[in-house]
Amino acid sequence: MSGGSQSVAIVGAGDYIGAEIAKKFASEGFHVHLGRRGGDKLQPLIDEINAAGGSASGRSLDAREPEDVTAFLAEAEARAPLELAIFNVGANVHFPILETTDRVFQKVWQMACFAGFVTGREAARIMLPRKRGKIFFTGATAGLRGGAGYAAFASAKFGIRAVAQSMARELWPSNIHVAHLIIDAGVDTKWVRQIIEQRQGSDALGNLKPDELMPPSAVAEAYWALFQQSPAAWTFEQEIRPYGETW
Amino acid sequence: MSGGSQSVAIVGAGDYIGAEIAKKFASEGFHVHLGRRGGDKLQPLIDEINAAGGSASGRSLDAREPEDVTAFLAEAEARAPLELAIFNVGANVHFPILETTDRVFQKVWQMACFAGFVTGREAARIMLPRKRGKIFFTGATAGLRGGAGYAAFASAKFGIRAVAQSMARELWPSNIHVAHLIIDAGVDTKWVRQIIEQRQGSDALGNLKPDELMPPSAVAEAYWALFQQSPAAWTFEQEIRPYGETW
Amino acid sequence: MSGGSQSVAIVGAGDYIGAEIAKKFASEGFHVHLGRRGGDKLQPLIDEINAAGGSASGRSLDAREPEDVTAFLAEAEARAPLELAIFNVGANVHFPILETTDRVFQKVWQMACFAGFVTGREAARIMLPRKRGKIFFTGATAGLRGGAGYAAFASAKFGIRAVAQSMARELWPSNIHVAHLIIDAGVDTKWVRQIIEQRQGSDALGNLKPDELMPPSAVAEAYWALFQQSPAAWTFEQEIRPYGETW
Amino acid sequence: MSGGSQSVAIVGAGDYIGAEIAKKFASEGFHVHLGRRGGDKLQPLIDEINAAGGSASGRSLDAREPEDVTAFLAEAEARAPLELAIFNVGANVHFPILETTDRVFQKVWQMACFAGFVTGREAARIMLPRKRGKIFFTGATAGLRGGAGYAAFASAKFGIRAVAQSMARELWPSNIHVAHLIIDAGVDTKWVRQIIEQRQGSDALGNLKPDELMPPSAVAEAYWALFQQSPAAWTFEQEIRPYGETW
Repeated sequence: MSGGSQSVAIVGAGDYIGAEIAKKFASEGFHVHLGRRGGDKLQPLIDEINAAGGSASGRSLDAREPEDVTAFLAEAEARAPLELAIFNVGANVHFPILETTDRVFQKVWQMACFAGFVTGREAARIMLPRKRGKIFFTGATAGLRGGAGYAAFASAKFGIRAVAQSMARELWPSNIHVAHLIIDAGVDTKWVRQIIEQRQGSDALGNLKPDELMPPSAVAEAYWALFQQSPAAWTFEQEIRPYGETW
Repeated sequence: MSGGSQSVAIVGAGDYIGAEIAKKFASEGFHVHLGRRGGDKLQPLIDEINAAGGSASGRSLDAREPEDVTAFLAEAEARAPLELAIFNVGANVHFPILETTDRVFQKVWQMACFAGFVTGREAARIMLPRKRGKIFFTGATAGLRGGAGYAAFASAKFGIRAVAQSMARELWPSNIHVAHLIIDAGVDTKWVRQIIEQRQGSDALGNLKPDELMPPSAVAEAYWALFQQSPAAWTFEQEIRPYGETW
Repeated sequence: MSGGSQSVAIVGAGDYIGAEIAKKFASEGFHVHLGRRGGDKLQPLIDEINAAGGSASGRSLDAREPEDVTAFLAEAEARAPLELAIFNVGANVHFPILETTDRVFQKVWQMACFAGFVTGREAARIMLPRKRGKIFFTGATAGLRGGAGYAAFASAKFGIRAVAQSMARELWPSNIHVAHLIIDAGVDTKWVRQIIEQRQGSDALGNLKPDELMPPSAVAEAYWALFQQSPAAWTFEQEIRPYGETW
Repeated sequence: MSGGSQSVAIVGAGDYIGAEIAKKFASEGFHVHLGRRGGDKLQPLIDEINAAGGSASGRSLDAREPEDVTAFLAEAEARAPLELAIFNVGANVHFPILETTDRVFQKVWQMACFAGFVTGREAARIMLPRKRGKIFFTGATAGLRGGAGYAAFASAKFGIRAVAQSMARELWPSNIHVAHLIIDAGVDTKWVRQIIEQRQGSDALGNLKPDELMPPSAVAEAYWALFQQSPAAWTFEQEIRPYGETW
């Protein structure tokens, strides 16, 4: 296994979206370096990629710890020049405002906003000297709209969207493509299917039909399309949703 | 010349963006049917595409005339099932409000909004029975922001954006992908280079540097990427701009 | 009856919002000049205002005819310097895209967009030489969002919003306050109550409860608040909705 | 000194906007309770209000400390039922992304977002049982747009805007008016005048002319107008800017 000549680091390489992104970029010849909480769960994915002729590495990562993120990106860079960093940590919670504790609000922000800021900044630190690279953030509907019961989650997602915008305006002229991909849909995961069952009809999520869910591989394809854009026509923000989704 | 097994109709197939879209989709195996004012200017493009092994047809089209648009789309459909209709008519004008005559305001609207509505509706009439097809609209910064001196142009571009949104919400569930591609940049055309020279520094356009212009082929690539999206993750609206563009 | 020392012209002075605006500004000492289709229906309102010690005039007005709008504003100016012009013409229609005829699309645009452009431009022509005045446009949810079935209405409302934006950016520096007041609600009119009954639950409007409707007098109060703003802190756009409205 | 029959709590009652809000609401008969860092600086303002026949109290407040905010609001409530809580803490900083330290990012968020969340939640805790009250947040351009160099500030302002939206959607139906007032301008303070001098022409702020600044009293008037809205026509978000401001 020689590995790719460029690397892709995924902060938040969970079982669904992160895994599909990893497989897609590995299949295109990149070394993928994967970080997540509970990194032991990464082994089957790494094995699968390597068995298919790709090149993958990974480990446990607490994205809320700046030193850990910095080290993680350095590891990717050590394998091969870091061409792309993707921040893909989720933290969806739903509470009435009076039940949104300080701790919940802070923790959701640390995971979904602060960790993304650090990821973006530290990736930029690697990429700026060579004026080359891409930094992508996975966004959600909640980054555009603060729904009832979503003060914590929406606040964090609005916050990371601002980070992405601010970085894009600063870094694009240095040939670093910063983008924000908004998934305006429930993603088809075991967790979302459970929530739909629990909330049956009580809110927007509870009203989703299973065939309105977005397959994680579709997100990977969207990232791949963004990745291939020429600097003559970059997209900062793009929403994707299934054809049957109402919006 | 056998032609493609599906056709693409381009309403507003001018020398730059329209021509590049035509060449791209022809190279991917589609028959392209091209309409523009002064259709005699289409012949070199049609010849070029056919010489390269593609399949193209075209003619003069006054997109403000509903019957003409209807006939034009029927011609494309007669060649091969209409898979994609692109509305790409431009009508950029700049006048202080007191100098924006009724005639200018009406004419810009007829070209940039009404013609697009008719194109969209008539394409939908063909596509809805088979629940398949795509309808794309070329948008501009002025579709999002009404700048000083752009009452006529921005009003028309806002208007067609609304048509696109409304059609998307109605037609996506029938598997018809309606999308709005916003070109947030000056496109590299002879005309824009002239305007830049004339307005030297007097407004945003006059401050553009030639290397901040978007090559028309980049727009064609963006449309191709939209075209390839799976219904599981469609984009309604997407902005593209050169990496050096400020926004 | 001496009349006010400044005049307010209302283009689209119907039975509800327009009438309440007229009564409010008359009660604050302005002469109000009222135009609408079927101007004979204005007499009771004019009588009511005059009986209450105010000053009102009015007549039939076809706002789609530029000459008529120009004459109408000149009449207001002849009474007293035109301090405020309000464009308040509605044109809400709802059709699937295939049933939205050319004629409907054009007519809705002429009423809700073109007429507003002319009103704004001609009011500006009066106000610009003295660098003083205000031009307000009544907007709707459909000016921000193109819903399924609203291609014609949303397109016109998007279009007039662009006109308002463009005029604001051009005219504010000349001390002319251009603003766009968005009524994000059903207004409590006989017509809306009928629609609610007809559409019972079939769409958003049909799901409104009568007590979620906005009383027309609340719109008049919102306009009065905008009117009183100091040039040090003008608002361009403002949404109003009832406390029980979902959004 | 009897004080008002209702109280207004201002979290972030600085020398400019906060002070003007305090004077305005005191002059309208409300008891105003003022909190800020360096609360000893409040005495002249409190003396001025009380001397003018109003009723004011205040003290040092660290809005980042939830217990302190809770106690502060309880003090206002103890004086008179809390009718309005205003969150008005600023935290504008400007750094290139690589120089935006973890500490800066966290601190700006604690001040401009977390503190606002706590203020809103604790005010809601007081107001919800009686289904009455208002919670207003002071926003900035940076809450809508992440400019280059503003990752920390924009992220916090986007974040608090999400909190306000989420709270509005949850609390309006309980007759609690949550609103977000966006000041799209430099406010005329000693600090801003210094920045303008330092940045002379190097960015948007450095290009402001002193007469494009917004007087703090204009913000107080805008809040007063929001406060007076009827529940039949509430505004969630409103931008204010001086007539000469470009946008």
